Amino acid sequence: MQIAKVIGTTVSTIKDEKLVGRKLLILRPTDEKGEPIGKPYVAIDTVNAGVGELVLTAAGSSARQTTITKDCPVDAVIMAVIDSLEVDGKSSFVKS
Amino acid sequence: MQIAKVIGTTVSTIKDEKLVGRKLLILRPTDEKGEPIGKPYVAIDTVNAGVGELVLTAAGSSARQTTITKDCPVDAVIMAVIDSLEVDGKSSFVKS
Amino acid sequence: MQIAKVIGTTVSTIKDEKLVGRKLLILRPTDEKGEPIGKPYVAIDTVNAGVGELVLTAAGSSARQTTITKDCPVDAVIMAVIDSLEVDGKSSFVKS
Amino acid sequence: MQIAKVIGTTVSTIKDEKLVGRKLLILRPTDEKGEPIGKPYVAIDTVNAGVGELVLTAAGSSARQTTITKDCPVDAVIMAVIDSLEVDGKSSFVKS
Amino acid sequence: MQIAKVIGTTVSTIKDEKLVGRKLLILRPTDEKGEPIGKPYVAIDTVNAGVGELVLTAAGSSARQTTITKDCPVDAVIMAVIDSLEVDGKSSFVKS
Repeated sequence: MQIAKVIGTTVSTIKDEKLVGRKLLILRPTDEKGEPIGKPYVAIDTVNAGVGELVLTAAGSSARQTTITKDCPVDAVIMAVIDSLEVDGKSSFVKS
Repeated sequence: MQIAKVIGTTVSTIKDEKLVGRKLLILRPTDEKGEPIGKPYVAIDTVNAGVGELVLTAAGSSARQTTITKDCPVDAVIMAVIDSLEVDGKSSFVKS
Repeated sequence: MQIAKVIGTTVSTIKDEKLVGRKLLILRPTDEKGEPIGKPYVAIDTVNAGVGELVLTAAGSSARQTTITKDCPVDAVIMAVIDSLEVDGKSSFVKS
Repeated sequence: MQIAKVIGTTVSTIKDEKLVGRKLLILRPTDEKGEPIGKPYVAIDTVNAGVGELVLTAAGSSARQTTITKDCPVDAVIMAVIDSLEVDGKSSFVKS
Repeated sequence: MQIAKVIGTTVSTIKDEKLVGRKLLILRPTDEKGEPIGKPYVAIDTVNAGVGELVLTAAGSSARQTTITKDCPVDAVIMAVIDSLEVDGKSSFVKS
Protein backbone atom coordinates (compact mmCIF):
# COMPACT_ATOMS: atom_id res chain seq x y z
CA MET A 1 0.00 0.00 0.00
CA GLN A 2 0.98 3.58 -0.46
CA ILE A 3 1.10 6.25 2.22
CA ALA A 4 -0.45 9.32 0.59
CA LYS A 5 -1.73 12.77 1.38
CA VAL A 6 -5.14 13.91 0.16
CA ILE A 7 -4.55 17.18 -1.70
CA GLY A 8 -7.74 17.81 -3.63
CA THR A 9 -10.96 16.80 -5.31
CA THR A 10 -12.25 16.03 -8.81
CA VAL A 11 -15.58 16.81 -10.45
CA SER A 12 -16.84 14.72 -13.38
CA THR A 13 -20.31 14.82 -14.92
CA ILE A 14 -19.65 12.34 -17.70
CA LYS A 15 -18.45 9.09 -16.15
CA ASP A 16 -19.06 5.37 -15.89
CA GLU A 17 -22.41 4.67 -14.23
CA LYS A 18 -20.73 2.74 -11.40
CA LEU A 19 -18.93 5.92 -10.35
CA VAL A 20 -22.05 8.03 -9.84
CA GLY A 21 -22.14 9.38 -6.29
CA ARG A 22 -18.58 8.32 -5.54
CA LYS A 23 -15.90 10.66 -4.20
CA LEU A 24 -12.70 10.66 -6.27
CA LEU A 25 -9.88 12.41 -4.43
CA ILE A 26 -6.47 13.64 -5.64
CA LEU A 27 -3.50 12.37 -3.65
CA ARG A 28 0.24 12.55 -3.61
CA PRO A 29 2.39 9.66 -2.36
CA THR A 30 4.45 10.54 0.71
CA ASP A 31 7.48 9.21 2.52
CA GLU A 32 7.34 7.64 5.97
CA LYS A 33 7.05 11.09 7.56
CA GLY A 34 4.06 12.11 5.50
CA GLU A 35 6.05 14.38 3.17
CA PRO A 36 4.85 14.27 -0.46
CA ILE A 37 7.48 12.70 -2.74
CA GLY A 38 5.75 11.59 -5.92
CA LYS A 39 3.34 12.38 -8.70
CA PRO A 40 -0.38 12.93 -8.06
CA TYR A 41 -2.97 10.21 -8.61
CA VAL A 42 -6.67 9.78 -7.95
CA ALA A 43 -8.34 7.25 -5.65
CA ILE A 44 -11.92 6.49 -4.69
CA ASP A 45 -12.67 7.26 -1.05
CA THR A 46 -14.30 4.63 1.19
CA VAL A 47 -13.47 6.05 4.64
CA ASN A 48 -14.67 9.64 4.36
CA ALA A 49 -11.14 11.06 4.17
CA GLY A 50 -10.60 14.81 4.04
CA VAL A 51 -8.19 17.09 2.20
CA GLY A 52 -4.94 17.35 4.19
CA GLU A 53 -5.25 13.92 5.81
CA LEU A 54 -2.70 11.15 5.48
CA VAL A 55 -4.21 7.89 4.24
CA LEU A 56 -3.38 4.44 2.91
CA THR A 57 -4.33 3.47 -0.63
CA ALA A 58 -4.43 0.06 -2.28
CA ALA A 59 -3.94 -0.27 -6.04
CA GLY A 60 -4.98 -2.60 -8.83
CA SER A 61 -7.56 -5.32 -8.38
CA SER A 62 -7.12 -4.91 -4.61
CA ALA A 63 -8.86 -1.56 -4.96
CA ARG A 64 -12.06 -3.41 -5.80
CA GLN A 65 -12.14 -5.46 -2.56
CA THR A 66 -14.35 -3.05 -0.58
CA THR A 67 -18.14 -2.93 -0.47
CA ILE A 68 -18.12 0.44 -2.20
CA THR A 69 -15.71 -0.42 -5.00
CA LYS A 70 -16.79 -3.96 -5.91
CA ASP A 71 -16.80 -4.38 -9.73
CA CYS A 72 -16.02 -0.67 -10.25
CA PRO A 73 -13.56 0.56 -12.88
CA VAL A 74 -11.23 2.02 -10.25
CA ASP A 75 -7.60 1.08 -9.67
CA ALA A 76 -6.93 2.89 -6.40
CA VAL A 77 -8.91 3.05 -3.15
CA ILE A 78 -8.47 4.92 0.11
CA MET A 79 -9.19 2.26 2.73
CA ALA A 80 -7.60 3.72 5.89
CA VAL A 81 -6.96 7.09 7.51
CA ILE A 82 -3.56 7.19 9.21
CA ASP A 83 -3.45 8.27 12.86
CA SER A 84 0.28 7.89 13.32
CA LEU A 85 3.45 6.42 11.86
CA GLU A 86 6.47 5.14 13.75
CA VAL A 87 9.89 4.49 12.21
CA ASP A 88 12.73 2.72 14.03
CA GLY A 89 10.90 3.11 17.30
CA LYS A 90 10.35 6.85 16.97
CA SER A 91 7.18 8.67 16.02
CA SER A 92 7.52 10.05 12.48
CA PHE A 93 3.96 11.34 12.00
CA VAL A 94 1.00 12.11 14.24
CA LYS A 95 -2.37 13.28 12.91
CA SER A 96 -3.01 16.80 14.18
CA MET B 1 -6.53 6.47 -11.27
CA GLN B 2 -4.50 8.72 -13.46
CA ILE B 3 -5.41 12.25 -14.51
CA ALA B 4 -4.53 12.38 -18.21
CA LYS B 5 -4.93 14.54 -21.28
CA VAL B 6 -6.16 13.06 -24.54
CA ILE B 7 -3.59 14.01 -27.17
CA GLY B 8 -4.35 11.82 -30.15
CA THR B 9 -5.77 8.79 -31.86
CA THR B 10 -4.61 5.40 -33.15
CA VAL B 11 -5.61 3.43 -36.23
CA SER B 12 -5.16 -0.34 -36.38
CA THR B 13 -6.52 -2.70 -39.00
CA ILE B 14 -4.97 -5.88 -37.65
CA LYS B 15 -6.10 -6.33 -34.05
CA ASP B 16 -7.78 -8.65 -31.59
CA GLU B 17 -11.40 -9.25 -32.59
CA LYS B 18 -12.66 -7.84 -29.29
CA LEU B 19 -11.18 -4.47 -30.20
CA VAL B 20 -13.06 -4.06 -33.47
CA GLY B 21 -15.06 -0.84 -33.41
CA ARG B 22 -13.39 0.45 -30.26
CA LYS B 23 -11.73 3.85 -29.96
CA LEU B 24 -8.14 3.67 -28.68
CA LEU B 25 -6.88 7.13 -27.70
CA ILE B 26 -3.36 8.38 -26.95
CA LEU B 27 -2.98 10.14 -23.59
CA ARG B 28 -0.33 11.77 -21.49
CA PRO B 29 -0.52 11.69 -17.68
CA THR B 30 -0.83 15.14 -16.12
CA ASP B 31 -0.29 16.76 -12.75
CA GLU B 32 -3.14 18.12 -10.62
CA LYS B 33 -3.36 21.23 -12.84
CA GLY B 34 -3.79 19.24 -16.03
CA GLU B 35 -0.22 19.81 -17.22
CA PRO B 36 1.30 16.77 -19.00
CA ILE B 37 4.16 15.27 -16.97
CA GLY B 38 4.72 11.74 -18.16
CA LYS B 39 5.11 9.38 -21.06
CA PRO B 40 2.26 8.66 -23.51
CA TYR B 41 0.03 5.61 -23.23
CA VAL B 42 -3.10 4.35 -24.93
CA ALA B 43 -6.52 3.74 -23.36
CA ILE B 44 -9.85 2.53 -24.65
CA ASP B 45 -12.55 5.19 -24.55
CA THR B 46 -15.92 4.49 -22.89
CA VAL B 47 -17.19 8.06 -22.37
CA ASN B 48 -16.80 9.60 -25.83
CA ALA B 49 -13.80 11.70 -24.80
CA GLY B 50 -12.24 14.12 -27.28
CA VAL B 51 -8.70 15.20 -28.07
CA GLY B 52 -7.66 17.99 -25.70
CA GLU B 53 -9.95 16.91 -22.86
CA LEU B 54 -8.76 15.98 -19.39
CA VAL B 55 -9.94 12.53 -18.28
CA LEU B 56 -9.49 9.86 -15.65
CA THR B 57 -8.11 6.45 -16.62
CA ALA B 58 -8.09 3.19 -14.66
CA ALA B 59 -5.38 0.61 -15.29
CA GLY B 60 -4.94 -3.14 -15.08
CA SER B 61 -7.84 -5.51 -14.48
CA SER B 62 -9.88 -2.50 -13.36
CA ALA B 63 -9.87 -1.37 -16.98
CA ARG B 64 -12.10 -4.33 -17.79
CA GLN B 65 -14.88 -3.40 -15.35
CA THR B 66 -17.01 -1.44 -17.81
CA THR B 67 -19.68 -2.78 -20.15
CA ILE B 68 -17.56 -1.91 -23.16
CA THR B 69 -14.28 -3.41 -21.94
CA LYS B 70 -15.47 -6.62 -20.27
CA ASP B 71 -13.09 -9.51 -21.17
CA CYS B 72 -11.13 -7.30 -23.59
CA PRO B 73 -7.32 -7.38 -23.83
CA VAL B 74 -7.02 -3.76 -22.67
CA ASP B 75 -5.15 -2.50 -19.62
CA ALA B 76 -6.31 1.12 -19.53
CA VAL B 77 -9.76 2.66 -19.83
CA ILE B 78 -11.05 6.22 -19.93
CA MET B 79 -14.05 6.12 -17.60
CA ALA B 80 -14.61 9.80 -16.73
CA VAL B 81 -14.24 13.23 -18.33
CA ILE B 82 -12.95 15.79 -15.83
CA ASP B 83 -14.96 19.00 -15.42
CA SER B 84 -12.77 20.55 -12.76
CA LEU B 85 -10.03 19.90 -10.23
CA GLU B 86 -9.55 21.60 -6.89
CA VAL B 87 -6.34 21.48 -4.83
CA ASP B 88 -6.06 22.78 -1.27
CA GLY B 89 -9.38 24.54 -1.62
CA LYS B 90 -8.47 26.38 -4.83
CA SER B 91 -9.52 25.59 -8.37
CA SER B 92 -6.55 24.13 -10.27
CA PHE B 93 -8.35 23.20 -13.50
CA VAL B 94 -11.67 24.05 -15.16
CA LYS B 95 -12.80 22.53 -18.45
CA SER B 96 -13.06 25.27 -21.03
CA MET C 1 -1.78 0.11 -23.45
CA GLN C 2 1.72 0.79 -24.57
CA ILE C 3 2.81 1.86 -28.03
CA ALA C 4 5.89 -0.23 -28.73
CA LYS C 5 8.25 -1.18 -31.53
CA VAL C 6 9.11 -4.81 -32.18
CA ILE C 7 12.91 -5.02 -32.16
CA GLY C 8 13.69 -8.70 -31.92
CA THR C 9 12.95 -12.30 -31.08
CA THR C 10 13.63 -14.79 -28.29
CA VAL C 11 14.39 -18.50 -28.41
CA SER C 12 13.68 -20.74 -25.41
CA THR C 13 13.77 -24.52 -25.32
CA ILE C 14 13.05 -24.93 -21.62
CA LYS C 15 9.76 -23.18 -20.85
CA ASP C 16 6.31 -23.58 -19.38
CA GLU C 17 4.28 -26.05 -21.44
CA LYS C 18 1.63 -23.41 -22.19
CA LEU C 19 4.25 -21.39 -24.08
CA VAL C 20 5.20 -24.14 -26.52
CA GLY C 21 4.72 -22.91 -30.08
CA ARG C 22 4.18 -19.31 -29.04
CA LYS C 23 6.13 -16.36 -30.45
CA LEU C 24 7.73 -14.18 -27.77
CA LEU C 25 8.97 -10.89 -29.24
CA ILE C 26 11.28 -8.22 -27.80
CA LEU C 27 9.86 -4.70 -27.82
CA ARG C 28 10.77 -1.21 -26.77
CA PRO C 29 8.12 1.28 -25.66
CA THR C 30 7.88 4.34 -27.90
CA ASP C 31 6.51 7.85 -27.73
CA GLU C 32 3.54 9.02 -29.77
CA LYS C 33 5.74 9.31 -32.88
CA GLY C 34 6.96 5.73 -32.67
CA GLU C 35 10.39 6.67 -31.32
CA PRO C 36 11.73 4.20 -28.71
CA ILE C 37 11.96 5.80 -25.26
CA GLY C 38 12.10 3.03 -22.68
CA LYS C 39 13.58 -0.25 -21.62
CA PRO C 40 13.02 -3.48 -23.57
CA TYR C 41 10.39 -6.03 -22.58
CA VAL C 42 8.96 -9.20 -24.06
CA ALA C 43 5.38 -9.84 -25.18
CA ILE C 44 3.56 -12.78 -26.69
CA ASP C 45 2.38 -12.15 -30.24
CA THR C 46 -1.25 -12.76 -31.24
CA VAL C 47 -1.44 -10.73 -34.46
CA ASN C 48 1.56 -12.00 -36.43
CA ALA C 49 3.58 -8.82 -35.86
CA GLY C 50 6.99 -8.44 -37.48
CA VAL C 51 10.29 -6.93 -36.38
CA GLY C 52 10.25 -3.19 -37.08
CA GLU C 53 6.49 -2.80 -36.77
CA LEU C 54 4.75 -0.50 -34.29
CA VAL C 55 2.21 -2.33 -32.14
CA LEU C 56 0.02 -1.99 -29.07
CA THR C 57 0.62 -4.18 -26.03
CA ALA C 58 -1.58 -4.83 -23.02
CA ALA C 59 -0.04 -5.77 -19.68
CA GLY C 60 -0.97 -7.75 -16.60
CA SER C 61 -4.06 -9.93 -16.41
CA SER C 62 -5.36 -8.12 -19.51
CA ALA C 63 -2.64 -9.90 -21.46
CA ARG C 64 -4.53 -13.16 -20.88
CA GLN C 65 -7.79 -12.00 -22.48
CA THR C 66 -7.07 -13.33 -25.97
CA THR C 67 -7.79 -16.80 -27.31
CA ILE C 68 -4.07 -17.51 -27.61
CA THR C 69 -3.04 -16.29 -24.15
CA LYS C 70 -5.90 -17.58 -21.98
CA ASP C 71 -4.49 -19.03 -18.72
CA CYS C 72 -0.90 -18.56 -19.92
CA PRO C 73 1.88 -17.28 -17.65
CA VAL C 74 2.40 -14.15 -19.76
CA ASP C 75 2.05 -10.55 -18.60
CA ALA C 76 2.25 -8.74 -21.94
CA VAL C 77 0.48 -9.35 -25.24
CA ILE C 78 0.69 -7.76 -28.66
CA MET C 79 -2.96 -7.40 -29.67
CA ALA C 80 -2.84 -4.77 -32.44
CA VAL C 81 -0.54 -3.62 -35.23
CA ILE C 82 -0.54 0.16 -35.59
CA ASP C 83 -1.29 1.61 -39.03
CA SER C 84 -1.05 5.25 -38.02
CA LEU C 85 -1.00 7.67 -35.11
CA GLU C 86 -2.38 11.20 -35.03
CA VAL C 87 -1.52 13.79 -32.38
CA ASP C 88 -3.30 17.15 -32.06
CA GLY C 89 -4.86 16.66 -35.46
CA LYS C 90 -1.58 15.96 -37.26
CA SER C 91 -0.21 12.64 -38.41
CA SER C 92 2.68 11.59 -36.16
CA PHE C 93 3.28 8.10 -37.55
CA VAL C 94 2.31 6.18 -40.67
CA LYS C 95 3.24 2.54 -41.25
CA SER C 96 5.57 2.33 -44.22
CA MET D 1 8.76 -10.33 -5.20
CA GLN D 2 10.57 -7.53 -3.54
CA ILE D 3 13.31 -7.85 -0.95
CA ALA D 4 12.45 -5.22 1.67
CA LYS D 5 13.41 -4.07 5.14
CA VAL D 6 10.74 -3.46 7.76
CA ILE D 7 11.33 0.07 9.05
CA GLY D 8 8.20 0.95 10.98
CA THR D 9 4.55 0.64 11.87
CA THR D 10 1.25 2.37 11.09
CA VAL D 11 -1.76 3.10 13.30
CA SER D 12 -5.21 3.62 11.79
CA THR D 13 -8.50 3.79 13.66
CA ILE D 14 -10.71 4.52 10.66
CA LYS D 15 -10.22 1.74 8.13
CA ASP D 16 -11.93 -0.91 6.04
CA GLU D 17 -13.54 -3.53 8.29
CA LYS D 18 -11.45 -6.30 6.73
CA LEU D 19 -8.30 -4.62 8.06
CA VAL D 20 -9.35 -4.61 11.70
CA GLY D 21 -6.75 -6.43 13.79
CA ARG D 22 -4.24 -6.59 10.97
CA LYS D 23 -0.64 -5.36 11.24
CA LEU D 24 0.35 -2.91 8.50
CA LEU D 25 4.11 -2.37 8.41
CA ILE D 26 6.23 0.26 6.65
CA LEU D 27 8.99 -1.12 4.44
CA ARG D 28 11.69 0.05 2.12
CA PRO D 29 12.80 -2.01 -0.87
CA THR D 30 16.43 -3.13 -0.65
CA ASP D 31 19.11 -4.38 -3.00
CA GLU D 32 20.45 -7.95 -2.91
CA LYS D 33 22.58 -7.08 0.15
CA GLY D 34 19.65 -5.81 2.17
CA GLU D 35 20.54 -2.13 1.70
CA PRO D 36 17.47 0.12 1.28
CA ILE D 37 17.31 1.61 -2.23
CA GLY D 38 13.77 2.76 -2.86
CA LYS D 39 10.72 4.59 -1.61
CA PRO D 40 8.73 3.38 1.42
CA TYR D 41 5.52 1.37 1.08
CA VAL D 42 3.18 -0.46 3.40
CA ALA D 43 2.41 -4.19 3.48
CA ILE D 44 0.20 -6.39 5.60
CA ASP D 45 2.16 -8.83 7.75
CA THR D 46 1.34 -12.56 7.72
CA VAL D 47 4.55 -13.99 9.20
CA ASN D 48 4.96 -11.95 12.39
CA ALA D 49 7.85 -9.91 10.99
CA GLY D 50 9.60 -7.37 13.18
CA VAL D 51 11.09 -3.93 12.59
CA GLY D 52 14.63 -4.28 11.25
CA GLU D 53 14.05 -7.65 9.61
CA LEU D 54 14.55 -8.36 5.92
CA VAL D 55 11.46 -9.86 4.28
CA LEU D 56 9.91 -10.76 0.95
CA THR D 57 6.73 -9.02 -0.19
CA ALA D 58 4.33 -9.92 -2.98
CA ALA D 59 2.29 -7.21 -4.70
CA GLY D 60 -1.04 -6.88 -6.49
CA SER D 61 -3.63 -9.65 -6.52
CA SER D 62 -0.90 -12.03 -5.35
CA ALA D 63 -0.99 -10.20 -2.02
CA ARG D 64 -4.45 -11.68 -1.46
CA GLN D 65 -3.38 -15.33 -1.79
CA THR D 66 -2.77 -15.96 1.92
CA THR D 67 -5.29 -17.07 4.51
CA ILE D 68 -5.01 -13.72 6.29
CA THR D 69 -5.34 -11.49 3.24
CA LYS D 70 -8.03 -13.29 1.24
CA ASP D 71 -10.51 -10.74 -0.22
CA CYS D 72 -8.81 -7.87 1.65
CA PRO D 73 -8.19 -4.45 0.05
CA VAL D 74 -4.42 -4.83 0.34
CA ASP D 75 -1.91 -4.78 -2.50
CA ALA D 76 1.23 -5.88 -0.67
CA VAL D 77 1.87 -8.75 1.73
CA ILE D 78 4.87 -9.89 3.75
CA MET D 79 4.88 -13.64 3.22
CA ALA D 80 8.46 -14.62 4.16
CA VAL D 81 11.21 -13.58 6.56
CA ILE D 82 14.63 -13.77 4.93
CA ASP D 83 17.33 -15.78 6.73
CA SER D 84 20.06 -15.25 4.17
CA LEU D 85 20.81 -14.15 0.63
CA GLU D 86 23.54 -15.44 -1.65
CA VAL D 87 24.76 -13.70 -4.81
CA ASP D 88 27.13 -15.27 -7.33
CA GLY D 89 27.96 -17.99 -4.83
CA LYS D 90 28.87 -15.62 -2.01
CA SER D 91 26.80 -14.74 1.03
CA SER D 92 25.43 -11.19 0.65
CA PHE D 93 23.18 -11.09 3.73
CA VAL D 94 22.76 -13.15 6.89
CA LYS D 95 20.08 -12.43 9.49
CA SER D 96 21.76 -11.41 12.72
CA MET E 1 7.67 -10.26 -19.69
CA GLN E 2 11.04 -9.24 -18.43
CA ILE E 3 14.38 -10.53 -19.64
CA ALA E 4 16.38 -11.10 -16.45
CA LYS E 5 19.58 -12.68 -15.21
CA VAL E 6 19.54 -15.02 -12.23
CA ILE E 7 22.11 -13.64 -9.78
CA GLY E 8 21.43 -15.44 -6.52
CA THR E 9 19.29 -17.35 -4.07
CA THR E 10 17.21 -16.69 -0.95
CA VAL E 11 16.73 -18.75 2.19
CA SER E 12 13.62 -18.33 4.36
CA THR E 13 12.53 -20.55 7.22
CA ILE E 14 9.48 -18.54 8.22
CA LYS E 15 7.20 -18.22 5.22
CA ASP E 16 3.72 -18.81 3.87
CA GLU E 17 2.93 -22.53 3.81
CA LYS E 18 2.36 -22.47 0.06
CA LEU E 19 6.01 -21.50 -0.44
CA VAL E 20 7.47 -24.49 1.39
CA GLY E 21 9.82 -26.39 -0.93
CA ARG E 22 9.82 -23.67 -3.56
CA LYS E 23 12.96 -22.07 -4.99
CA LEU E 24 12.96 -18.26 -4.81
CA LEU E 25 15.74 -16.76 -6.92
CA ILE E 26 17.19 -13.25 -7.06
CA LEU E 27 17.24 -11.66 -10.51
CA ARG E 28 18.20 -8.45 -12.20
CA PRO E 29 16.35 -7.19 -15.27
CA THR E 30 18.56 -6.95 -18.35
CA ASP E 31 18.51 -5.22 -21.69
CA GLU E 32 18.12 -7.07 -24.99
CA LYS E 33 21.77 -8.16 -24.84
CA GLY E 34 21.45 -9.73 -21.43
CA GLU E 35 23.22 -6.88 -19.62
CA PRO E 36 21.73 -6.09 -16.18
CA ILE E 37 20.09 -2.64 -16.16
CA GLY E 38 17.68 -2.51 -13.23
CA LYS E 39 17.05 -3.22 -9.59
CA PRO E 40 17.00 -6.76 -8.17
CA TYR E 41 13.78 -8.67 -7.57
CA VAL E 42 12.83 -12.19 -6.56
CA ALA E 43 10.88 -14.75 -8.60
CA ILE E 44 9.75 -18.30 -8.01
CA ASP E 45 11.46 -20.79 -10.29
CA THR E 46 9.41 -23.29 -12.33
CA VAL E 47 11.99 -24.33 -14.95
CA ASN E 48 14.99 -25.29 -12.82
CA ALA E 49 16.94 -22.17 -13.76
CA GLY E 50 20.49 -21.71 -12.49
CA VAL E 51 22.52 -18.74 -11.27
CA GLY E 52 24.03 -16.94 -14.26
CA GLU E 53 21.32 -17.96 -16.71
CA LEU E 54 19.16 -15.54 -18.67
CA VAL E 55 15.45 -16.16 -18.19
CA LEU E 56 12.01 -14.71 -18.81
CA THR E 57 9.79 -13.73 -15.88
CA ALA E 58 6.08 -12.92 -15.80
CA ALA E 59 4.69 -10.61 -13.13
CA GLY E 60 1.44 -10.06 -11.29
CA SER E 61 -1.47 -12.48 -11.50
CA SER E 62 0.20 -14.01 -14.56
CA ALA E 63 2.85 -15.37 -12.22
CA ARG E 64 0.22 -17.71 -10.78
CA GLN E 65 -0.66 -19.37 -14.10
CA THR E 66 1.73 -22.30 -13.77
CA THR E 67 1.10 -25.64 -12.07
CA ILE E 68 3.68 -24.81 -9.39
CA THR E 69 2.48 -21.29 -8.59
CA LYS E 70 -1.31 -21.70 -8.70
CA ASP E 71 -2.91 -19.79 -5.78
CA CYS E 72 0.52 -18.91 -4.33
CA PRO E 73 1.33 -15.48 -2.89
CA VAL E 74 4.00 -14.82 -5.54
CA ASP E 75 4.04 -11.97 -8.03
CA ALA E 76 6.90 -13.07 -10.28
CA VAL E 77 7.67 -16.39 -11.92
CA ILE E 78 10.53 -17.70 -14.04
CA MET E 79 8.75 -19.59 -16.80
CA ALA E 80 11.42 -19.84 -19.53
CA VAL E 81 15.20 -20.16 -19.86
CA ILE E 82 16.52 -18.08 -22.75
CA ASP E 83 18.69 -19.84 -25.33
CA SER E 84 19.27 -16.84 -27.55
CA LEU E 85 18.08 -13.34 -28.39
CA GLU E 86 18.10 -11.66 -31.78
CA VAL E 87 17.73 -7.92 -32.37
CA ASP E 88 17.25 -6.34 -35.80
CA GLY E 89 18.26 -9.60 -37.43
CA LYS E 90 21.52 -9.96 -35.51
CA SER E 91 22.26 -12.25 -32.60
CA SER E 92 22.47 -10.21 -29.39
CA PHE E 93 22.78 -13.07 -26.89
CA VAL E 94 23.60 -16.77 -27.04
CA LYS E 95 23.57 -19.02 -23.98
CA SER E 96 27.09 -20.27 -23.33
